[in-house]
Amino acid sequence: MRLLLLNPNTSRDVTELMRATGSAVAAPGTEILTATAPRGVPYIATRAEAQIGGAIALEMLAEAPPVDAAIIAAFGDPGLFGARELFDYPVVGLAEAAMLSACLLGRRFGLVTFARALVPWYEETVAAHGLGQRCAGVRALEGRFSALSGVQEEKEAQLIDLAHAAVEEDGADVLIFAGAPLSGLGPRVRDRVPVPVVDQVVAAVKLAEALAAQRPRKATAGTFRRPDPKPSTGLAPALAARIGGAG
Amino acid sequence: MRLLLLNPNTSRDVTELMRATGSAVAAPGTEILTATAPRGVPYIATRAEAQIGGAIALEMLAEAPPVDAAIIAAFGDPGLFGARELFDYPVVGLAEAAMLSACLLGRRFGLVTFARALVPWYEETVAAHGLGQRCAGVRALEGRFSALSGVQEEKEAQLIDLAHAAVEEDGADVLIFAGAPLSGLGPRVRDRVPVPVVDQVVAAVKLAEALAAQRPRKATAGTFRRPDPKPSTGLAPALAARIGGAG
Amino acid sequence: MRLLLLNPNTSRDVTELMRATGSAVAAPGTEILTATAPRGVPYIATRAEAQIGGAIALEMLAEAPPVDAAIIAAFGDPGLFGARELFDYPVVGLAEAAMLSACLLGRRFGLVTFARALVPWYEETVAAHGLGQRCAGVRALEGRFSALSGVQEEKEAQLIDLAHAAVEEDGADVLIFAGAPLSGLGPRVRDRVPVPVVDQVVAAVKLAEALAAQRPRKATAGTFRRPDPKPSTGLAPALAARIGGAG
Amino acid sequence: MRLLLLNPNTSRDVTELMRATGSAVAAPGTEILTATAPRGVPYIATRAEAQIGGAIALEMLAEAPPVDAAIIAAFGDPGLFGARELFDYPVVGLAEAAMLSACLLGRRFGLVTFARALVPWYEETVAAHGLGQRCAGVRALEGRFSALSGVQEEKEAQLIDLAHAAVEEDGADVLIFAGAPLSGLGPRVRDRVPVPVVDQVVAAVKLAEALAAQRPRKATAGTFRRPDPKPSTGLAPALAARIGGAG
Amino acid sequence: MRLLLLNPNTSRDVTELMRATGSAVAAPGTEILTATAPRGVPYIATRAEAQIGGAIALEMLAEAPPVDAAIIAAFGDPGLFGARELFDYPVVGLAEAAMLSACLLGRRFGLVTFARALVPWYEETVAAHGLGQRCAGVRALEGRFSALSGVQEEKEAQLIDLAHAAVEEDGADVLIFAGAPLSGLGPRVRDRVPVPVVDQVVAAVKLAEALAAQRPRKATAGTFRRPDPKPSTGLAPALAARIGGAG
Amino acid sequence: MRLLLLNPNTSRDVTELMRATGSAVAAPGTEILTATAPRGVPYIATRAEAQIGGAIALEMLAEAPPVDAAIIAAFGDPGLFGARELFDYPVVGLAEAAMLSACLLGRRFGLVTFARALVPWYEETVAAHGLGQRCAGVRALEGRFSALSGVQEEKEAQLIDLAHAAVEEDGADVLIFAGAPLSGLGPRVRDRVPVPVVDQVVAAVKLAEALAAQRPRKATAGTFRRPDPKPSTGLAPALAARIGGAG
Repeated sequence: MRLLLLNPNTSRDVTELMRATGSAVAAPGTEILTATAPRGVPYIATRAEAQIGGAIALEMLAEAPPVDAAIIAAFGDPGLFGARELFDYPVVGLAEAAMLSACLLGRRFGLVTFARALVPWYEETVAAHGLGQRCAGVRALEGRFSALSGVQEEKEAQLIDLAHAAVEEDGADVLIFAGAPLSGLGPRVRDRVPVPVVDQVVAAVKLAEALAAQRPRKATAGTFRRPDPKPSTGLAPALAARIGGAG
Repeated sequence: MRLLLLNPNTSRDVTELMRATGSAVAAPGTEILTATAPRGVPYIATRAEAQIGGAIALEMLAEAPPVDAAIIAAFGDPGLFGARELFDYPVVGLAEAAMLSACLLGRRFGLVTFARALVPWYEETVAAHGLGQRCAGVRALEGRFSALSGVQEEKEAQLIDLAHAAVEEDGADVLIFAGAPLSGLGPRVRDRVPVPVVDQVVAAVKLAEALAAQRPRKATAGTFRRPDPKPSTGLAPALAARIGGAG
Repeated sequence: MRLLLLNPNTSRDVTELMRATGSAVAAPGTEILTATAPRGVPYIATRAEAQIGGAIALEMLAEAPPVDAAIIAAFGDPGLFGARELFDYPVVGLAEAAMLSACLLGRRFGLVTFARALVPWYEETVAAHGLGQRCAGVRALEGRFSALSGVQEEKEAQLIDLAHAAVEEDGADVLIFAGAPLSGLGPRVRDRVPVPVVDQVVAAVKLAEALAAQRPRKATAGTFRRPDPKPSTGLAPALAARIGGAG
Repeated sequence: MRLLLLNPNTSRDVTELMRATGSAVAAPGTEILTATAPRGVPYIATRAEAQIGGAIALEMLAEAPPVDAAIIAAFGDPGLFGARELFDYPVVGLAEAAMLSACLLGRRFGLVTFARALVPWYEETVAAHGLGQRCAGVRALEGRFSALSGVQEEKEAQLIDLAHAAVEEDGADVLIFAGAPLSGLGPRVRDRVPVPVVDQVVAAVKLAEALAAQRPRKATAGTFRRPDPKPSTGLAPALAARIGGAG
Repeated sequence: MRLLLLNPNTSRDVTELMRATGSAVAAPGTEILTATAPRGVPYIATRAEAQIGGAIALEMLAEAPPVDAAIIAAFGDPGLFGARELFDYPVVGLAEAAMLSACLLGRRFGLVTFARALVPWYEETVAAHGLGQRCAGVRALEGRFSALSGVQEEKEAQLIDLAHAAVEEDGADVLIFAGAPLSGLGPRVRDRVPVPVVDQVVAAVKLAEALAAQRPRKATAGTFRRPDPKPSTGLAPALAARIGGAG
Repeated sequence: MRLLLLNPNTSRDVTELMRATGSAVAAPGTEILTATAPRGVPYIATRAEAQIGGAIALEMLAEAPPVDAAIIAAFGDPGLFGARELFDYPVVGLAEAAMLSACLLGRRFGLVTFARALVPWYEETVAAHGLGQRCAGVRALEGRFSALSGVQEEKEAQLIDLAHAAVEEDGADVLIFAGAPLSGLGPRVRDRVPVPVVDQVVAAVKLAEALAAQRPRKATAGTFRRPDPKPSTGLAPALAARIGGAG
């Protein structure tokens, strides 16, 4: 089984962090391909960047080799619903995978992330998935950190403090460290958080495997059927071809 | 990995149907154990029966051998939240697994079942999981059928008609044939339904595998931590022991 | 008029406390019968215990003498919806009665209870009755107390402090001391709480009287009509008979 | 116990119909006083009329003799929340009483009324009480009728047809004939509707009795405490006095 | 274009404050007429007063000269929905105008007002407009102030502190100083609040101009069509005439 | 005052239609600039196209001359929330403007559009604005039409039929013809629809004028403050500069 782990950000080290986290739990026959955005921002953190990064994710999917399932590997799932419409294989979002997995382990999940700027986008992501009743809240680090790829080590103590606050003050039954740079933190600190911790990349890989094993058919009706072919101007050639009805 | 597929109904043939459906998709190393309710009703269909059957499910879990995860294998998930609280390994409900998997494939899922009597219970199950925004509706066969274990063959054409109605009139993007006796129907008729069909047992086995692979810790805080030991009177011995704090 | 006050817990002193509280306000012609669970736990406090206790409540109702209405006398209403389906006379829950009465006296009610362990169950009870918009929150004592039957005296000051917090911080217009062991506390301390206090047992007795006076017919349609007769195995004989279509 | 049944409409025959319906179920010691609006419209049916009629209801309460509880006897409850704020005894609305009573008998209630013009006001009433989840819908007669006071006899067959539709198509578990001129219809036709029928006046009298028996204290905090005294100009003298802080 | 700015309170200085605020932003051809309630209270602050003041607003509209649009110039919009039903030109509420304008500038708006007594009414106003998801909360001054007409100067510092709290603690993206006596405060202190401030009167005048420019037709169907003519007793003559079908 | 009417589609004739519709109602001093997407699809109709078109809209805004306010002139508002974050002047969406204007004229608005493919996107737009309670539903033409720019004439009769259905069957109080190619239809057919019709372009121009007249400050706090400067790779130069912090 081939899974595409698609990072819509331009940070290659974050892609590598996610690849390593996912590979550690992938089933024996699973091959994880990765792609890092060739253009865009190092780390999507706002609505505008998600708008742009989601469009880039669609280009990247159109240009990707054939796979059994794809993961849009940014918490916030930029471009997810468009991708699910346009492509034939299952596409899973990092936030979606983490949140739905968390639903299996408790009533409400708490999100802990590394920058306040991410909070509104993450709140809107919860709402976009219709999971407001299952979310206990979003907490974020205040202040600066040295480098994206090292934030989970640099701020480990504070992130665990936020996890405790999510449990004790917000009523979280399950904890998600949200944001691609926090991938792999969950498995590492699981014994220091008093509720189950769901790792976003682990969840995405396991759910993508579970879905791909079922080989769900592409809808030919409903709101996720493939749109009718349409002409376009000036889009990336592979994406234009896909929108135009190609293979 | 050992999964317990626990049927809280007394119908052994339905247990066997679910075992066969699940085994067909289980990963190589997965062993599926089954248990059928030693007391109760042949098929839970009402709130009262779910109340009773859920209590029996807790007894059965207390009496079960050690496993890596358990599936409460009745759509409606009787006893699920109590089980998640009382036991240390992941417990997944049939309805929950199907609905959360369906969320990965579209915006709204439709439920199609085989008896009108089940509709209110299923609607309340959707609400209990906080997934009302993701459900397009519940449709049910009218009229009688010969035998529970044969209902999916006997009524196949009508069930597919209901699936079409769920897509075309209710706006379902994904279809779930709901109710244990319909296990295995989805994979069999998938080409005759214009949207992806999620099979409840397939979904439950794959999600239980995915969760068990992550070995989530048992909560020691939050609303699903194990309750403090408590004395009891007249309960099944293994359940009394578990409630009393035993291993 | 005969009312059955059914305690699904095994604590006889709590039954007696509730009987005394209810008798003080019952109308002249009202006779209050009581029943205490012959098996189960002393005090239902978790989802698992509610699952079990609700099934026991159904057994107790099946074994009860003829009455005009019954009260499931545990806040959280274990087994209520199943009982309403299976039996012909009105069945009222303690939580339901208190909450609906409180709705007549203000916009939002606050719940104050004696143990943190009860909070999730009570929150789910509010949601199960569709009254989320009318609830200002649930507050609970921290820490231990000597005995269930004496908790309302031992912790009176703290419970009143929580009531004040519910009014001042949560915006409660009405206050409910929730949990059977707090029965009778409301009438006793009403002058020390700045909003109307609804006593759960008083509310349940008065609403059961009000309903029974109207002798509502048993539904023969809708989701609370009596289910079709069904065979069963190993259930308490009276319950099996009722499920099987008797009387 | 003295209950004031206050009709904010000018139709004396409807007042008399409600008095008769209520008296038939009142407890032995209950005395029902009535008041009919001295000004206003014969039958409130729109938002504008409810605005005006609610203000008149406040005047009527300010002018009324001392009572133990009052009923605002128009479905739609004009002026209810203001009255609950301004006066010291319990005030119950006709719609509120019927809907909360219906909640004790099923999951969702259906409303059936005699004129399409009433539907938006009734829908807004359901929402104002936060009971949207408990309402299956509002159905209304089409066309004209001869006289308000005779509409329940003239249109009996059609009203029962609408009740059947509410049960079968909307999923109502309980039925309410809504609108003061339909008072007493429920008890009369209860055997021709397949679910329990709640009569609005019966419900209001029994709930007012139940509340008055508890003598709830007037809030001195929260959103229903009595407002601070305030000067006014040109209002009815008794109302001006009450707003000004008089007894 | 003629706009009627209708103050349903008896405070002429507040009318003048609003006239001045609105005139400063009115388009060249806009003429702002004012009306101050001839009876009622100096400042509507409770549900009862809103009930009464809304009825007075309807009288005032019935007595007003012909205009192109009217503004019900009290935050809380007393009588708005009735007015929209009964009259042919657009009628805009002060709260409604401010909240809908704020929606154009951010996700959630915060309300800051000058008296705690107003909070429940304002919360119910948000809900009545179905804008709960867009409101970050309502904050109010504690304590007394010297005079209504001077409250915005006297308490300026505290009001700005509350605005900061609404942004920082409640997550408001936009700020509304709510309550007629705060009219004009927004434009004056806009540089001291870190998010856009919407002035209620400015918003109402600009939206009334925008609507009147479109000359929307009066509905002849739907819930805001003009009600059928109806007789009445004892109402203000112009209002009785309007309800009776006049002009 | 300069308004930018930005069409994120590549159809110049639709831009011209909207310019003409808007110019007819613009205030004397208002100058309407237009921009048509230099790349993308002729008409955005799906989630994927909205993802792409929204990113293009951000590029277009970054490249635009200075204006007082901008309109994202596609119903569905692609890129709106990102634009509101990234730019300093007010940005209004076509759907948002129409829906918020409709809220001023009734309780619920109905949407009528010209292609079934648009329905899911429009439903998600309603939800994204938190206006679900105010929307009566979305109706769409079935079948094909000759040309986008002529669809409103070709299908006029059917569109009016859908408007009638929205009023009579869905309960719409206000009607919106949704989708840029329907601009100008509302004013033309207003006498043939029994409720007020809001034209999306008219509403957007008038609201943009109303907002620009208030010159709201750019947020420096809250979720719509301008994001911190960020490096990027491969984006359109003007957009990269804006994201990078340029003026």
